[in-house]
Amino acid sequence: MTLTPEESEILNNAIRDIPDFPKPGIVFKDISTLLNDAEAYGLLMEHLHKRYKAYKLDFVAGIDARGFIFGAALAQMLGIGFVPIRKKGKLPYTTVAEKYALEYGFDEVEIHIDAFRGIDKAKVLLIDDLVATGGTAFAAANLIDKSGGDCVEACFILGLDFLDGQKKLKDVTEVYTVIRVD
Amino acid sequence: MTLTPEESEILNNAIRDIPDFPKPGIVFKDISTLLNDAEAYGLLMEHLHKRYKAYKLDFVAGIDARGFIFGAALAQMLGIGFVPIRKKGKLPYTTVAEKYALEYGFDEVEIHIDAFRGIDKAKVLLIDDLVATGGTAFAAANLIDKSGGDCVEACFILGLDFLDGQKKLKDVTEVYTVIRVD
Repeated sequence: MTLTPEESEILNNAIRDIPDFPKPGIVFKDISTLLNDAEAYGLLMEHLHKRYKAYKLDFVAGIDARGFIFGAALAQMLGIGFVPIRKKGKLPYTTVAEKYALEYGFDEVEIHIDAFRGIDKAKVLLIDDLVATGGTAFAAANLIDKSGGDCVEACFILGLDFLDGQKKLKDVTEVYTVIRVD
Repeated sequence: MTLTPEESEILNNAIRDIPDFPKPGIVFKDISTLLNDAEAYGLLMEHLHKRYKAYKLDFVAGIDARGFIFGAALAQMLGIGFVPIRKKGKLPYTTVAEKYALEYGFDEVEIHIDAFRGIDKAKVLLIDDLVATGGTAFAAANLIDKSGGDCVEACFILGLDFLDGQKKLKDVTEVYTVIRVD
């Protein structure tokens, strides 16, 4: 279940390149122009729905903040619950945490300890807007497994193929990327 | 279009009180237990869909980060576009900004200057998870109007009635709160 070339083109055209954001030399992929385009947004979400309805998922987990957009919409379409994964200190109840390395230093993501409502080995789809080096997603996938779930796949709207994030992630989970950028 | 008492009870029971978060004396309303409960989350989104399909909206705008959850899911259900409103510095393209006062100091929210795709007086629903003093939502509603849209209503999953946010907001837009807390 992948996109037709025509569908790919619609989605690709809906994404805007922003040169030198957030810093010089980086071309930022702006998905806000896909989100506010009813046709492209609807097409993307229908595609994700078609793909994942066969997976018999228990939850969709989205990474703060743009992963919330696609994750919550998909969970609603699938008729299942949504679980937020957030940066340290944002979730109010007891959490499980996972550290990951940045270029300089560390960051940390958290999930509520009872996020999967006690369902043993709950089948969880992890979702985020973009995968670059994959550091956050790698930590998030580990977090799902550590907190009693089973991360069956990590899904990204965009993947930067010139970085090795998608390859690295395959050590911990299946990976599906809707639009791959060379 | 409001909830039945039975539906209200299901949603109320799905929200968890967290005492002393983020600081002593504050009881935080944790919506993550509503989101990961497929029945409650589905019921809430169906309710919003029923209410807003009659409004002939052009866009749903959600406030970073929890407003993204409900806003993106609702936009998908309505078959329209979603627009993110974010804290200063997060949006990559040219923005319109609006400052608002905090207890000590100021904060700022932004929207992309072309968020409503050039549609004159686009009908926009503003959505966030919670309204307390209403400062952020007031700024966000003004921002929608300043950037060429028409904020037809502000919708919140939870409203704290002991603070005057909902009343204050009525100066700039209609207000609908799903669950009101005394």
